[in-house]
Amino acid sequence: MTLEIPRTSRAAVLEEYGQPLRIHEVSIPAVGPGEILVKVQLAGICGTDVHQSRGTLTIKPPLPNIQGHETIARIVRLGAGRSKDVAGAPLSVGDRIMWAHADCGQCYWCQVARDTVLCSSRQGYGFANPSLLRGGFAEYEHISAITDVVRVPDEITDEEAIGVGCAFRTVVAGFERLGGVRFQESVVVLGAGPVGLYSALLAVASGAHRVIVVGAPARRLELARKWGASHVIDIDEVKDPRERQQRITELTEGRGPELVVECSGVPAAFNEGLEMLQKGGRFLVMGQTSAATLPVAPGIITGKALTIVGSVSASIQHFYKALQFIQANRTKYPLSDIVTTRYPLEQINEALANMASGQEIKPVIDNRVR
Amino acid sequence: MTLEIPRTSRAAVLEEYGQPLRIHEVSIPAVGPGEILVKVQLAGICGTDVHQSRGTLTIKPPLPNIQGHETIARIVRLGAGRSKDVAGAPLSVGDRIMWAHADCGQCYWCQVARDTVLCSSRQGYGFANPSLLRGGFAEYEHISAITDVVRVPDEITDEEAIGVGCAFRTVVAGFERLGGVRFQESVVVLGAGPVGLYSALLAVASGAHRVIVVGAPARRLELARKWGASHVIDIDEVKDPRERQQRITELTEGRGPELVVECSGVPAAFNEGLEMLQKGGRFLVMGQTSAATLPVAPGIITGKALTIVGSVSASIQHFYKALQFIQANRTKYPLSDIVTTRYPLEQINEALANMASGQEIKPVIDNRVR
Amino acid sequence: MTLEIPRTSRAAVLEEYGQPLRIHEVSIPAVGPGEILVKVQLAGICGTDVHQSRGTLTIKPPLPNIQGHETIARIVRLGAGRSKDVAGAPLSVGDRIMWAHADCGQCYWCQVARDTVLCSSRQGYGFANPSLLRGGFAEYEHISAITDVVRVPDEITDEEAIGVGCAFRTVVAGFERLGGVRFQESVVVLGAGPVGLYSALLAVASGAHRVIVVGAPARRLELARKWGASHVIDIDEVKDPRERQQRITELTEGRGPELVVECSGVPAAFNEGLEMLQKGGRFLVMGQTSAATLPVAPGIITGKALTIVGSVSASIQHFYKALQFIQANRTKYPLSDIVTTRYPLEQINEALANMASGQEIKPVIDNRVR
Amino acid sequence: MTLEIPRTSRAAVLEEYGQPLRIHEVSIPAVGPGEILVKVQLAGICGTDVHQSRGTLTIKPPLPNIQGHETIARIVRLGAGRSKDVAGAPLSVGDRIMWAHADCGQCYWCQVARDTVLCSSRQGYGFANPSLLRGGFAEYEHISAITDVVRVPDEITDEEAIGVGCAFRTVVAGFERLGGVRFQESVVVLGAGPVGLYSALLAVASGAHRVIVVGAPARRLELARKWGASHVIDIDEVKDPRERQQRITELTEGRGPELVVECSGVPAAFNEGLEMLQKGGRFLVMGQTSAATLPVAPGIITGKALTIVGSVSASIQHFYKALQFIQANRTKYPLSDIVTTRYPLEQINEALANMASGQEIKPVIDNRVR
Repeated sequence: MTLEIPRTSRAAVLEEYGQPLRIHEVSIPAVGPGEILVKVQLAGICGTDVHQSRGTLTIKPPLPNIQGHETIARIVRLGAGRSKDVAGAPLSVGDRIMWAHADCGQCYWCQVARDTVLCSSRQGYGFANPSLLRGGFAEYEHISAITDVVRVPDEITDEEAIGVGCAFRTVVAGFERLGGVRFQESVVVLGAGPVGLYSALLAVASGAHRVIVVGAPARRLELARKWGASHVIDIDEVKDPRERQQRITELTEGRGPELVVECSGVPAAFNEGLEMLQKGGRFLVMGQTSAATLPVAPGIITGKALTIVGSVSASIQHFYKALQFIQANRTKYPLSDIVTTRYPLEQINEALANMASGQEIKPVIDNRVR
Repeated sequence: MTLEIPRTSRAAVLEEYGQPLRIHEVSIPAVGPGEILVKVQLAGICGTDVHQSRGTLTIKPPLPNIQGHETIARIVRLGAGRSKDVAGAPLSVGDRIMWAHADCGQCYWCQVARDTVLCSSRQGYGFANPSLLRGGFAEYEHISAITDVVRVPDEITDEEAIGVGCAFRTVVAGFERLGGVRFQESVVVLGAGPVGLYSALLAVASGAHRVIVVGAPARRLELARKWGASHVIDIDEVKDPRERQQRITELTEGRGPELVVECSGVPAAFNEGLEMLQKGGRFLVMGQTSAATLPVAPGIITGKALTIVGSVSASIQHFYKALQFIQANRTKYPLSDIVTTRYPLEQINEALANMASGQEIKPVIDNRVR
Repeated sequence: MTLEIPRTSRAAVLEEYGQPLRIHEVSIPAVGPGEILVKVQLAGICGTDVHQSRGTLTIKPPLPNIQGHETIARIVRLGAGRSKDVAGAPLSVGDRIMWAHADCGQCYWCQVARDTVLCSSRQGYGFANPSLLRGGFAEYEHISAITDVVRVPDEITDEEAIGVGCAFRTVVAGFERLGGVRFQESVVVLGAGPVGLYSALLAVASGAHRVIVVGAPARRLELARKWGASHVIDIDEVKDPRERQQRITELTEGRGPELVVECSGVPAAFNEGLEMLQKGGRFLVMGQTSAATLPVAPGIITGKALTIVGSVSASIQHFYKALQFIQANRTKYPLSDIVTTRYPLEQINEALANMASGQEIKPVIDNRVR
Repeated sequence: MTLEIPRTSRAAVLEEYGQPLRIHEVSIPAVGPGEILVKVQLAGICGTDVHQSRGTLTIKPPLPNIQGHETIARIVRLGAGRSKDVAGAPLSVGDRIMWAHADCGQCYWCQVARDTVLCSSRQGYGFANPSLLRGGFAEYEHISAITDVVRVPDEITDEEAIGVGCAFRTVVAGFERLGGVRFQESVVVLGAGPVGLYSALLAVASGAHRVIVVGAPARRLELARKWGASHVIDIDEVKDPRERQQRITELTEGRGPELVVECSGVPAAFNEGLEMLQKGGRFLVMGQTSAATLPVAPGIITGKALTIVGSVSASIQHFYKALQFIQANRTKYPLSDIVTTRYPLEQINEALANMASGQEIKPVIDNRVR
């Protein structure tokens, strides 16, 4: 199979923070040994993309750059020596793949700590100069030689897979760091964005006794129910955290949940989780990505003998396992329902605006849409 | 062996918060089935005792009461049916024993969660009405039928064992909840009171690469060195937390420690620990016993992928293991050096005052001292 | 609610090994403090019962005795002071309960090792002299004061619950000792009796990628499929272990399963599991209850870096969690299908014969059947 | 610093199984990008080397080859782009390094399972054609670009470090796979060769309550005592395994050890370990490297609820941690005492013969010896 390679690719370029992205034709770099050129199938839009385009992230990558860090794409050209994915599956032109970071494989964190999430020179996609073509908001994308990739099994649809690119692999890695859900635990998920929804799904599929999702708006909570959550609490309706905690306590034999998974991004959720947890309970914290502070009483951690596990990002094995999950569970749960709207690349600014307003769950850029 | 039992016991009674304890003669209760009457060998004085006598604990037991919750004592009479300790060692009049709590053995926490520290009706010693004679600041003490006890091996001295009654078993339980020190971790201990000192000792004896104790005053840090700490940082000398963190970073290859053990009781130590920890590091929090709040950035837990484990108190198996440790290590470390002064019961108020001033490490009441 | 208590209970008594059980009228003991008298709803028949009645178990309890160790029963009288189950649920006459062992709560294993399965003086039901009325093959059963019990939630049927009395709680305890199924592991279950079937169910419900059950006869494998097993291999059809291993290797990307759960009771299954496991895999061994030996090469354990976890029996918290599972999953899986035939007590010998012949999965004694 | 590089290196070459190695002058390969040329300081002789030279290993590498897989060596030339070790320490000509395997970093085991010991194309040193110069029984050795290396800290002597090259890193990896020694466990080590001795050392330094080494001859047991073992049992004196087990049971409160570490290489030790273990105990099996079988009763694993962990070889992080241990403990234990004799390369056959006869613990080839 051979696919023709054009000289340039359309790409949405962030030129100035707070200004709309602009569509440009960008040169497609040559494909050296180990490198891969792909054609984007779907590029997911993440909450982070909204903040990144506004310049409100703690990390501000240099301008101009091409955003888009969760991508499923089809191989157009394979550089010399690149013949397999991380699980040993053969790679060919035309196959769909996913990827997200390039870890150095050489530093203390990669080699001694064996935790590549902590790699001291990890490079992500969606942050680089347009000349490198390393962002999903484009027609084509260029993958470096040290970037590990996974082949997407043929029976999985693009829509089912797209969440693996960011939220789902984050959740898989977080649950692994936690040590998994224990048999018949009651689990509360704080937050109903993609990270919260996939957390609820994983808790359901891992044998939790009940899964209670706390979030908004109603559209997201409906999907949580479809994915097996036993209860949802709409924070637009139950606005008082104490009332939410009371309901949760009632739902958990008066003891509180054994496990709380924080996916909200709201600092106050940290205290809400600490308060509602059962004595001896566990708290997985994945949503706290800002530097904001709030008043916390560390005595509650000692007094209730709580365990708190922070987790961020993921490594390539988590992509593989997330795809394994989708393969095994695609007929049990409507996984593609997370994709709420498809936008052509030209409507990227509208897509970002709708993501910001909360009306979307997971909007995607789909170059095949007109 | 039979020991004569008097009708009354001297005891130091807390009658009013903030006032000196007063010595009274208290009736010795009868010894029913499973109960034990003991004669106190040593009663340790804990930082908690100072707060308890002042009424500044979050929990205020009703007055009057007899304090003293860490005790080593000799059996004077064994109630019917009480013939063995928790490890199956036979019990006889004249044997020395230790104990600390009575767990119900019936509730969800004892039976399903299997974590008796969390028992919903746990009773401690050192908080009860004088008529029950359940406090160590007395000549005799009366142990209830549901209280589990451990026999102290003969070769261990009272001074070596006394810390098992509170600080040391707390540390043993905390390290167990943590999952232990991993091979060649660098460990920082925040706080140099008995909990901090025993934490340093356990880290040393568990194969830490280096153990750095941060605390004061110098007398305590000297003992930390004798017990094997590789480095100490005196907070009376290095008063700026940023300077302390910088020194620790230099001592840990620029990465920070893999494990921080918080034993200081000072809320600010919680943030100090979060800041200095290595990416992916672990934080054992045992010293935070107040309800005080401070500004915390939960984002640091997510961003550095930290694990925080809170731990409080201990169960009877931790007493047994702490005594096993002492038996195996008493010739390697000067364990009795933790006892700084012996006071007769009549000087209990002076002992509490000297504990409060920080000049003591572990003062004890010893009825044999005049 | 008060239920009338007769003076005697019918019971099937084992008087001589290898001879049929005989129905007798047995005196009902008085109900002392903490004791409970129950009326049997269902008494499950276990493979062990067949061996026990033949005298071929390694442990031979003294004769005569009443068998029956997995029972669901209704409270007829509660002894003084017995008011709650292990999870704190109130107990009343008329409630259904389950139980299985009396642990001493006093020995090294109960108190220091905190693993009551290992209790040095554990007493089970189904092995005692008829005068004690401690076996399920009877109308009434008498529960001792130190026996922990769980209340069965009202919405669960007797048939759904009966497996909790032996096979299911064994599986829950085994999976806990193992540390649970890891995300997206491929699991092979060796054996399709009740222990194998519940293992398959738990693996399915815990998020295994695929679950392959190896056993016979077809009737059991059908239930495995209904309970979610992705593949079954009928050993009556595929008789050569090498061929079975080859099929399993093909089903697991050529690497073999990450987890094998041995539930067959056949010694040869031990080697079959070692051979098929993936490098670095885990092996939960629950079915090996005889003293039989077979030739094993320990080098395979070292060379493939395998972990083997043996597990036997369970403690009362595993009953509670098994019932929690049933409550949460009774509409997802046809749990009551495990009960294949109900026999009146008078047909106990026919029931044992049919269990021995392999035509049953879980036959039960139901006194309401005529 | 520049070191002159000769054109050839002396090397002991295995040309025919069962025949003496012969000294040849071998061409030194060019040093390409990422490759390293080293001059051997010490080459340890391992029990495996004896079997390898006789052709009695299960794996028979093609002839001729250069043996020697545990080496400490000094950098003579660094290939382009090789500037740091795995922990980020800068590498320079003249530095001493250690290494052992080249993992592909690309396969399922390296990338998804993240367990490089299981790498599907792992290459070791000490097995290759002389033209590659990849064995320690030589003056110089050539290290490939994908081989990870650790720098040996300057204060550590060659003799203290040499065990890291094989036995010690194996033990570090095995204890990690096990999850470490738990607080105050009693540990029995079966075997007193280098793997057994380092296991005893690690158990001592990890806080075991007591460490009992079972092995021979007396010289090795003396070193075990120097390294902190609390008891030794000489199998030349106590020849009956039942008598050994009885002594161990007496030393462990009648319960048996919580942990047995098998390092003997004798199949019978597998059963000896299973028999002596405490109920609920753990068994780390590192010495079983043959395909030999013996009669085993799997029922003991189920009945006593044992956990068995197999472990083989190690990864580069274990070398790093082993060196960290040596750095921290070199003044506490006489670590260099493991080296019993230094032989010049010309006496390699005498060294192998003395290793085979059991009179050595760790003999080494030292080119500086004449």
